Amino acid sequence: MCGIFGIFNHKNASNIAYLGLHALQHRGQESAGIASTDGYGMQSHREMGLVSDIFNEEVLKRLKGHSAIGHVRYSTAGSSNLGNAQPLVVEYSKGNIAIAHNGNLTNAKVIKDELENYGSIFQSSTDTEAIIHLIALSHENTTLDRLISALRRVEGSYSLVVLTDKELIAVRDSYGFRPLVLGKLKDSFVISSETCAFDLIEARYLREIKPGEILCINKDGIKTFRPFKKMSPKFCIFEYIYFARPDSYMFGRTVYSVRKALGKELAKDTHVDADMVIPIPDSGIGAAIGYAQEAGIPFELGLIRNHYVGRTFIEPEESIRHFGVKLKLNAIHDIVKGKRIIVVDDSVVRATTGRKIIKMLRQYGAKEIHFRVSSPPTMFPCFYGIDTPSRRELIASSHNVEEINTYMTSDTLEYLTIDGMKRALGNGEYTYCDACFSGTYPSKFPWDMELEQMELFVKR
Amino acid sequence: MCGIFGIFNHKNASNIAYLGLHALQHRGQESAGIASTDGYGMQSHREMGLVSDIFNEEVLKRLKGHSAIGHVRYSTAGSSNLGNAQPLVVEYSKGNIAIAHNGNLTNAKVIKDELENYGSIFQSSTDTEAIIHLIALSHENTTLDRLISALRRVEGSYSLVVLTDKELIAVRDSYGFRPLVLGKLKDSFVISSETCAFDLIEARYLREIKPGEILCINKDGIKTFRPFKKMSPKFCIFEYIYFARPDSYMFGRTVYSVRKALGKELAKDTHVDADMVIPIPDSGIGAAIGYAQEAGIPFELGLIRNHYVGRTFIEPEESIRHFGVKLKLNAIHDIVKGKRIIVVDDSVVRATTGRKIIKMLRQYGAKEIHFRVSSPPTMFPCFYGIDTPSRRELIASSHNVEEINTYMTSDTLEYLTIDGMKRALGNGEYTYCDACFSGTYPSKFPWDMELEQMELFVKR
Amino acid sequence: MCGIFGIFNHKNASNIAYLGLHALQHRGQESAGIASTDGYGMQSHREMGLVSDIFNEEVLKRLKGHSAIGHVRYSTAGSSNLGNAQPLVVEYSKGNIAIAHNGNLTNAKVIKDELENYGSIFQSSTDTEAIIHLIALSHENTTLDRLISALRRVEGSYSLVVLTDKELIAVRDSYGFRPLVLGKLKDSFVISSETCAFDLIEARYLREIKPGEILCINKDGIKTFRPFKKMSPKFCIFEYIYFARPDSYMFGRTVYSVRKALGKELAKDTHVDADMVIPIPDSGIGAAIGYAQEAGIPFELGLIRNHYVGRTFIEPEESIRHFGVKLKLNAIHDIVKGKRIIVVDDSVVRATTGRKIIKMLRQYGAKEIHFRVSSPPTMFPCFYGIDTPSRRELIASSHNVEEINTYMTSDTLEYLTIDGMKRALGNGEYTYCDACFSGTYPSKFPWDMELEQMELFVKR
Amino acid sequence: MCGIFGIFNHKNASNIAYLGLHALQHRGQESAGIASTDGYGMQSHREMGLVSDIFNEEVLKRLKGHSAIGHVRYSTAGSSNLGNAQPLVVEYSKGNIAIAHNGNLTNAKVIKDELENYGSIFQSSTDTEAIIHLIALSHENTTLDRLISALRRVEGSYSLVVLTDKELIAVRDSYGFRPLVLGKLKDSFVISSETCAFDLIEARYLREIKPGEILCINKDGIKTFRPFKKMSPKFCIFEYIYFARPDSYMFGRTVYSVRKALGKELAKDTHVDADMVIPIPDSGIGAAIGYAQEAGIPFELGLIRNHYVGRTFIEPEESIRHFGVKLKLNAIHDIVKGKRIIVVDDSVVRATTGRKIIKMLRQYGAKEIHFRVSSPPTMFPCFYGIDTPSRRELIASSHNVEEINTYMTSDTLEYLTIDGMKRALGNGEYTYCDACFSGTYPSKFPWDMELEQMELFVKR
Repeated sequence: MCGIFGIFNHKNASNIAYLGLHALQHRGQESAGIASTDGYGMQSHREMGLVSDIFNEEVLKRLKGHSAIGHVRYSTAGSSNLGNAQPLVVEYSKGNIAIAHNGNLTNAKVIKDELENYGSIFQSSTDTEAIIHLIALSHENTTLDRLISALRRVEGSYSLVVLTDKELIAVRDSYGFRPLVLGKLKDSFVISSETCAFDLIEARYLREIKPGEILCINKDGIKTFRPFKKMSPKFCIFEYIYFARPDSYMFGRTVYSVRKALGKELAKDTHVDADMVIPIPDSGIGAAIGYAQEAGIPFELGLIRNHYVGRTFIEPEESIRHFGVKLKLNAIHDIVKGKRIIVVDDSVVRATTGRKIIKMLRQYGAKEIHFRVSSPPTMFPCFYGIDTPSRRELIASSHNVEEINTYMTSDTLEYLTIDGMKRALGNGEYTYCDACFSGTYPSKFPWDMELEQMELFVKR
Repeated sequence: MCGIFGIFNHKNASNIAYLGLHALQHRGQESAGIASTDGYGMQSHREMGLVSDIFNEEVLKRLKGHSAIGHVRYSTAGSSNLGNAQPLVVEYSKGNIAIAHNGNLTNAKVIKDELENYGSIFQSSTDTEAIIHLIALSHENTTLDRLISALRRVEGSYSLVVLTDKELIAVRDSYGFRPLVLGKLKDSFVISSETCAFDLIEARYLREIKPGEILCINKDGIKTFRPFKKMSPKFCIFEYIYFARPDSYMFGRTVYSVRKALGKELAKDTHVDADMVIPIPDSGIGAAIGYAQEAGIPFELGLIRNHYVGRTFIEPEESIRHFGVKLKLNAIHDIVKGKRIIVVDDSVVRATTGRKIIKMLRQYGAKEIHFRVSSPPTMFPCFYGIDTPSRRELIASSHNVEEINTYMTSDTLEYLTIDGMKRALGNGEYTYCDACFSGTYPSKFPWDMELEQMELFVKR
Repeated sequence: MCGIFGIFNHKNASNIAYLGLHALQHRGQESAGIASTDGYGMQSHREMGLVSDIFNEEVLKRLKGHSAIGHVRYSTAGSSNLGNAQPLVVEYSKGNIAIAHNGNLTNAKVIKDELENYGSIFQSSTDTEAIIHLIALSHENTTLDRLISALRRVEGSYSLVVLTDKELIAVRDSYGFRPLVLGKLKDSFVISSETCAFDLIEARYLREIKPGEILCINKDGIKTFRPFKKMSPKFCIFEYIYFARPDSYMFGRTVYSVRKALGKELAKDTHVDADMVIPIPDSGIGAAIGYAQEAGIPFELGLIRNHYVGRTFIEPEESIRHFGVKLKLNAIHDIVKGKRIIVVDDSVVRATTGRKIIKMLRQYGAKEIHFRVSSPPTMFPCFYGIDTPSRRELIASSHNVEEINTYMTSDTLEYLTIDGMKRALGNGEYTYCDACFSGTYPSKFPWDMELEQMELFVKR
Repeated sequence: MCGIFGIFNHKNASNIAYLGLHALQHRGQESAGIASTDGYGMQSHREMGLVSDIFNEEVLKRLKGHSAIGHVRYSTAGSSNLGNAQPLVVEYSKGNIAIAHNGNLTNAKVIKDELENYGSIFQSSTDTEAIIHLIALSHENTTLDRLISALRRVEGSYSLVVLTDKELIAVRDSYGFRPLVLGKLKDSFVISSETCAFDLIEARYLREIKPGEILCINKDGIKTFRPFKKMSPKFCIFEYIYFARPDSYMFGRTVYSVRKALGKELAKDTHVDADMVIPIPDSGIGAAIGYAQEAGIPFELGLIRNHYVGRTFIEPEESIRHFGVKLKLNAIHDIVKGKRIIVVDDSVVRATTGRKIIKMLRQYGAKEIHFRVSSPPTMFPCFYGIDTPSRRELIASSHNVEEINTYMTSDTLEYLTIDGMKRALGNGEYTYCDACFSGTYPSKFPWDMELEQMELFVKR
């Protein structure tokens, strides 16, 4: 996954972008970058690592200009290198262009092969570069028209911010898989993956970029375009369940409220007598609070998270290599001892973490452990940007709930049903992509190469 | 503050020390170090930064041997440099000695001046080095006797682990200000500031090192000594309130349970009608849960913490320099809007953070804000190792509760009383140092130089 | 300037390339790089700095494979950045290709503008990248034919080594401006800018790559092609005079021997009575020895060079900023005092260094100073790869010898004549480019943009 | 070996020290450091590496004040670490003191053992630290008296510069083994190991610090003291032969002139018919020029040195690990082919380098090779600061000239005789330490531990 941010017309544009990326850091910790323009030239800086480690006063001073875009990128094994960090910045015949992308193009490999046959030279292994080449090769006159022409060729999910020397363009694909919002900070327009970035910089939230919308911001103001065929929206439901920050306002509600609602529906359907409800922190907290309130069972923070576990933490030598989840989480002895405990998590992927936590709780003397999951079984991989493992590794794609319960050694295990999930999301039209639970993918993709492509090619 | 750890007789001693320090990281993020011995020579590695950034496989491999001690150090302005990182390691006439110290020697400057007059050369600005020189200058024969002779000269607080080529020694001052616990990991003895380190390495908790006890561990086993005059214990109450990790078992209970108890007592004494209780994360969570349970008011995680705020985060330029607490915390709009809110924090030092949070909650539409503090007003500086600011900066030392309420702009503000605090700590003997609340310092110190010394000299 | 190296079919290809670059370090100290292939994939490593600082065992181990090419690049102000380091490595429709270039394409900007109009995206500011794009855009089938098609489009000077997964190709432009030699190391073929690299790796010198020759080496052996119109050769005479290493065998003789011959001819034409001949080290040593032998005047190393002057040496603050040449050179007091001295240098560019040396020699008591230059006045800029300053800065383009003598404060100043230079180069056909002395440029270039282009665009 | 420098009363003291160290870089490439004072506090900076890599504008700006001392240290295996870099800087009861030392204390271990028994704690493994501790422990009142008292205890060789907040002190041991000179730069006094540093900063050479002299410079001027028993001087003859820079004026002559004189005497005694004389660069150049002039045989620079061989150069893998001397030196084919060659070197230590050079010259076709050494056989280790290998590794301590000739595969091999060396040094009193040739050590040292000490303890 990734987070993107853009700002137009602010005297400290790169500083604001830096703050925006800081607020979006949870969307990607592998690399970060900012590109800025003063209307004449473009500067950029990209590095592996966290926003706060990459940027300092000196770097930000060099990123001068009134407009900027930024990007944070998630770590996925194998494709982790600086060349894939964004924003991508190139100089082509029409001037400078920088682009930051959140999503995954499902036909990127097809396009790349075709363009290389015509003589294009790719510098990175990201699908985003395909868009850049399509822009450079387009025969249209304006950047906007070239961008539209390029996007007509690509399939999959994309929320984009594009920066040229004169304008900031924001785009969301026709399904609107990934979020993208518009705000105002005094005289500046700002674009962000999530509203939490607006809160930090004290910008006012205006509205979402609509699925299929292209928003073009320049010194003459803001213009909107809808050049693509209209589709029924398919917002990613996993943003609600796991990915987005609880304080972000997304698709009409705060994420925290949705998680509480999911926990409440879970409590209604899967009641069990117990002494307390404890979440697996941090992503399970919202659902656990909702569960506890609905069930009338005390909420306790029975598992403590060590927030100093960085990416560089090394596992010690063989003989002592069984620490795993304990490096991140520890249970509180006198809280869990002798108790009947409902453990709430947001989702179960491989079930290995849950199994280890249950083992620890039992070691510390828990009497009963009832595992509750505030989403349905995750059975299908995501091809639209969430880094779920391949189908083989998703335990729910090959085991039923009873088998998973046995594996996890919980006393009982229950998932939220798809119906329960729909109830939590309200009475209105159901506008979500839930392919990871249902297997119903909104868009087609080159099926013959699907698995191969999806496992070899870089996702974000 | 600091955290210390020691292990004797383990084939992966430095790896275990590394894990131990990782679990104690919350006690100090400025620097970390490990010294190890194979019985013949001593190796050590110290660096500025976090445990997980400082140590890697290569470094740990170099730290060979069956025994090791480690140290994490807290950042205090001015004295932040590698020369002050610990363990201090020296070679002197009796061989190698390494020492790691948690606490603060109140007469360190007096001793340093005296020793320099006799020709000693100090290399660091830490008070701990005074102990090293006193050991080197002692006429006793064994390291143990030299250490005892040195400690007879120093005043203040100290929990120590000392490593020589042949033994691991653990010491706690006669008041027992700072915690220190003993555990067993198969055939190895382990020493740690807190039990959370034992949980991680799966060591068995045996008992606390007693106030005034010297524990000497070598190949012949473990021996205990009580060479100093017995004092009535004065455990640091601030470890419970703020400093220690919630999952640590300390002075007879887990820290989380104590915090919940403090919150419950607070609820009993300071009742107010409200729609929800929200903590200031992370340290206020335990008390807020206790408060909510006692008061029967729903608990909500209404403030979300950004865990990516590292030490290197820079504030942007002047014109946009008012982000402050928002870099760390954000409130959830639709949860707080129109609501009567009880905000629970563990303590109030300068009141600036609380004031900013209240301002944010009001911006987001909170109707009423009742601020509750699960400890009494912090009115006096700590001279025993907690890095409280000087008296001038402690708002409660110069303002009463009403004035602080006005400053913070809360609707109401209430602190836990000292009585409430004592009730929460149980019916037994009251064995705590509460000087930061009461002004009653257990030990004397060179008064004539007190203020000067305390503000100029390095604390940890 | 730059140095290039290639090796095909050696189990330690990147190690050999590393040694080769080390021997060619004098041709460029700004950056260095190696690309290698095992026949399937390509690895590369490029960095700013010296060969010995950039490569270590770990890096070389990563550069696996049986074939490799390498490049060292000279520092030219403004264009000094990693993006311009070579070898350039790209993946295009036909697979991987790496290219290392010594020379300067005079029509690179024209080509770049044209290709960008067609949609190509340039990543660097080097002229070499134009060749890469022309290869990628070619409709020919094999890399060789694509390379030929690309080279038909470019003008200027180029010695190239090109590496694909299956072959190593060496090319020299039709004039043969820059050197390029072929050698054999057991079963491996090696290519190098100079023979000094062969001496180090103990390869056997076979012959020069001929002007206009394309040499293609693969597992089936070595094949030669001459696809371009034959021109009369124009070897760069400045390689002899200043640039190449004295121990290299080039265009039929060792550079040292040529320099001695130039010095001898200089002595014949510009006799003066003196007590000693001293060179400006290191480049003037060969000519000074020749001069001294011919004139029968003792040779002395009267100027000592400090070899620790690196690229990072900083000039101290304003008030003491007049050290200049003294950081590099110092004279020997009792050798020069009261003596009549002939100072020999290989060439005079701005005359500032010579002026400072003469001032120092007079300070140390020299009685007479006769400055002798073993090449004609440098009056014209080089457009074929030597980093001479622009014409405005070449003192000889605007001042006659008498004026330069006055500026330098020498008692007498004499240059070698073009005739003398031709005599030193022997009786055979005169096959050299001496445009820097004569202004006679062998090739045409886009004159309308000449000055602008040459001063803005990157040279190497 | 090491080089030392000091300056008193200059507004850019640390900048001047930086330039001075740059000129002394040949005396030590392992580490460098500068300490400076503004009369109140002391700043210092030490690092591993070359002067030009260690210091930059920012670092020099931090080293503020009107006075400074600096040190460069030579690399000796095993003791290479930052803790041993100088100047040593400590704060003790009398204030700040910094010290930089060139030489070797022969009784350092004895003193260290004794001081540790009294409780002193040593931080480094350098002998210099013993002086610091003796100063700190002295009961005298002034730094000068404490220093004198300390120096009465030490034996061996030392040239020192000592900096306090108020004064700069320069000391040379009673034999004057190592050089030390005094100069004047406008209103500032400067101290340096060699005069080449004065030439760079354009200071005026005043005189040598005399053997046994203590020079104390403060705001009241310069005072000289001779507190030690007068000894007949024993200047290190190896400074002339190999170590010092040719342009330095030392013990009454320039080093270059002495080397030429040594070469001339060598020519007189060891005549052989030959076509040319070539030096092993750089240290053999002076003697080779003298030899060639005396013998009337042409001088040629037949061996070219690659000056880019840094300390970080790595030898490639096993299979190709026989490059050795070729990484540094290459011969010129057409110069040496078919010729009778006299090769001149300044000294022979292990004879391995000479052997490899002879092998290369024969490969390139040399007809006869006559090896000539401009010093007598090096048979004894130096205990006064020159890093000669232990006696076992000195080929001349166990083999006679004929055997060495056989090993080196030269046609003939001849050394300068001790008599020849004395003739070259002139008719005056012979005031040199030639223990490395004669075995006559001027001072006694603790014989019982001699070998052990000398091989285990750190030399410089």
